[in-house]
Amino acid sequence: MVKNTTIYDIAREAEVSVSTVSRVLNDTAPVKASTRDKIMKVIEKHKFQPNALARSLIKKETGTIAMIVPDITNPFFPEVFYGANQEARDKGYTFFLCNTSGDDDRESEYLTILREKRVDGIIFIGGRINLANCPSELVQEVLEAAETIPVVLVNGNLAKTKFHRVYSDEAVGAALATQHLIDLGHRDIAFIGGLDFMTTTIQKVKAVKKKLEDHDLTLRKEWIIYGEFSIQAGRDLMNKLLDDSEHRPTAVLCVNDFTAIGAIKAASDRGLRIPEDISIVGFDDSPLSTAVIPELTTVTQNTHELGKYAVERIYQINNAMPTKRTTVLTPELIVRQSSGPAPKK
Amino acid sequence: MVKNTTIYDIAREAEVSVSTVSRVLNDTAPVKASTRDKIMKVIEKHKFQPNALARSLIKKETGTIAMIVPDITNPFFPEVFYGANQEARDKGYTFFLCNTSGDDDRESEYLTILREKRVDGIIFIGGRINLANCPSELVQEVLEAAETIPVVLVNGNLAKTKFHRVYSDEAVGAALATQHLIDLGHRDIAFIGGLDFMTTTIQKVKAVKKKLEDHDLTLRKEWIIYGEFSIQAGRDLMNKLLDDSEHRPTAVLCVNDFTAIGAIKAASDRGLRIPEDISIVGFDDSPLSTAVIPELTTVTQNTHELGKYAVERIYQINNAMPTKRTTVLTPELIVRQSSGPAPKK
Repeated sequence: MVKNTTIYDIAREAEVSVSTVSRVLNDTAPVKASTRDKIMKVIEKHKFQPNALARSLIKKETGTIAMIVPDITNPFFPEVFYGANQEARDKGYTFFLCNTSGDDDRESEYLTILREKRVDGIIFIGGRINLANCPSELVQEVLEAAETIPVVLVNGNLAKTKFHRVYSDEAVGAALATQHLIDLGHRDIAFIGGLDFMTTTIQKVKAVKKKLEDHDLTLRKEWIIYGEFSIQAGRDLMNKLLDDSEHRPTAVLCVNDFTAIGAIKAASDRGLRIPEDISIVGFDDSPLSTAVIPELTTVTQNTHELGKYAVERIYQINNAMPTKRTTVLTPELIVRQSSGPAPKK
Repeated sequence: MVKNTTIYDIAREAEVSVSTVSRVLNDTAPVKASTRDKIMKVIEKHKFQPNALARSLIKKETGTIAMIVPDITNPFFPEVFYGANQEARDKGYTFFLCNTSGDDDRESEYLTILREKRVDGIIFIGGRINLANCPSELVQEVLEAAETIPVVLVNGNLAKTKFHRVYSDEAVGAALATQHLIDLGHRDIAFIGGLDFMTTTIQKVKAVKKKLEDHDLTLRKEWIIYGEFSIQAGRDLMNKLLDDSEHRPTAVLCVNDFTAIGAIKAASDRGLRIPEDISIVGFDDSPLSTAVIPELTTVTQNTHELGKYAVERIYQINNAMPTKRTTVLTPELIVRQSSGPAPKK
């Protein structure tokens, strides 16, 4: 393994200071001709490549953006990453991907590392920015990072702060899905999935309730069942719901596509036909939604755009271009095969 | 936005060279007490945080590993990333994720960027390392990167090179899947999916043929249908296969889970029952495989281990620890619901 030659090695061998080498490399200030020649000879001898790290120290830009995500194996996040990465290409950014497993400590660790690495921007998705009550010390850490690095929150927020935000309006999406089921004649609608202290759950439940009330319907308390965001959770929660065979909903809204797929599996296992016996609607329009049978009716989150606009924002801030603080994307309902008319009683 | 203070700013304000500041910061060589004091005062004044970039230049380590992947939205790759990330945490590495969309040029671009960024290691998956005939200039680029950076190839290879490799033995996996179908009484077995110039396809087809021949069976030429690796491709290829209603296989091996899911959808659309009428087997054991109905019989690729061992390898190389050049993981067959006894004629 040949060791990288650094600007320090060049300076040592040419018997000059590092800043003199950097002046030659970056042509930022005049350097005596004989000194320049001596430095250039050493550079040529070592085939020294302009070093991104050394350049970064001078330019105060690293050409890197970090994306902090809770779970890269949940297909929602790779899609956001993909959108961000496409946009970043032209702008010359490379990505750090920081997977936290939704762990506060890991998030804090990454915030420290990223400040040290002087990234040009942080895109924060999930974790603490989706807590209904985020502890103030966790908010503080993000605020401190934002003192030196542009931070964009995607699909989340931190109370009493003014972060740059890009988000898909999940309340609008949940209302669309609810209206769709009402239009199909459903009156007995349940909501399953999602942790009850996460805003992504709370906002949706609130919007579903509101929409039902607009139609003089109610979301029964025992038909709101919280849990994790996984396929397995969706299965368990749906089974809980179906255990009461006397009072069953005719349609189920799920917090995301993962839980909806679990719900489909639980219903199928009990011999229920979807959508003839029960309609199931997801949220996210992840690639999973067209992988299942029946294909999932769901709400698109404009995942690629979420990533794209977050990168655009960071680029604008770093280049002192005009930018806006908040970008709201409007979700759309995608009707596929898992929802249909309410069964006749 | 407060601008980051750099080692250059400290040097300028303290009227000393950058290398003197670095000597104080890193305690690598004696510095006159009065100079040290002057520097420390400037450092304290600016609350200068030890900067990862500056430290990297001196330590010649950046604490970063890059993973080059063709498609982060294909669930196989996030799983490998997850495994790598878990292993990297204890070892103090942060990850660059470089998504190439399988584009040679993008791969080349990333190889250049990563050399500039002086990453501590590169994990290369997919793309050129899976080409049956990789052009020599593309091989050369990877060789050049490997002169200064440890490179580990995951599930691939470059001919006539001696790269470090971690891979799952796909031929063994394909043989296991074939044996499973033979044991279930299948004699008419087809293979669909995968580009015919990719080793991941070629190795599997070869292994399937070999296993069938061991049992005096043949893989009929018209029952090997190549294509992309997507769900849509699986659907199209399966439809092509089923169009010939006179001669239909009783079982189909698919190049990956994506194409297997497409195959299930095409078969279902034609009213075929799985596995009663036709067995379908995937490859990868991605999270998708338990999301579909019926759940997919597939071959595990040990995705987390692929990532874990790749990081371990890089760590060993960088720390001059004993290491081996090749790690082979043995895949396992996971029997679920999509395969069953061959239908009686």
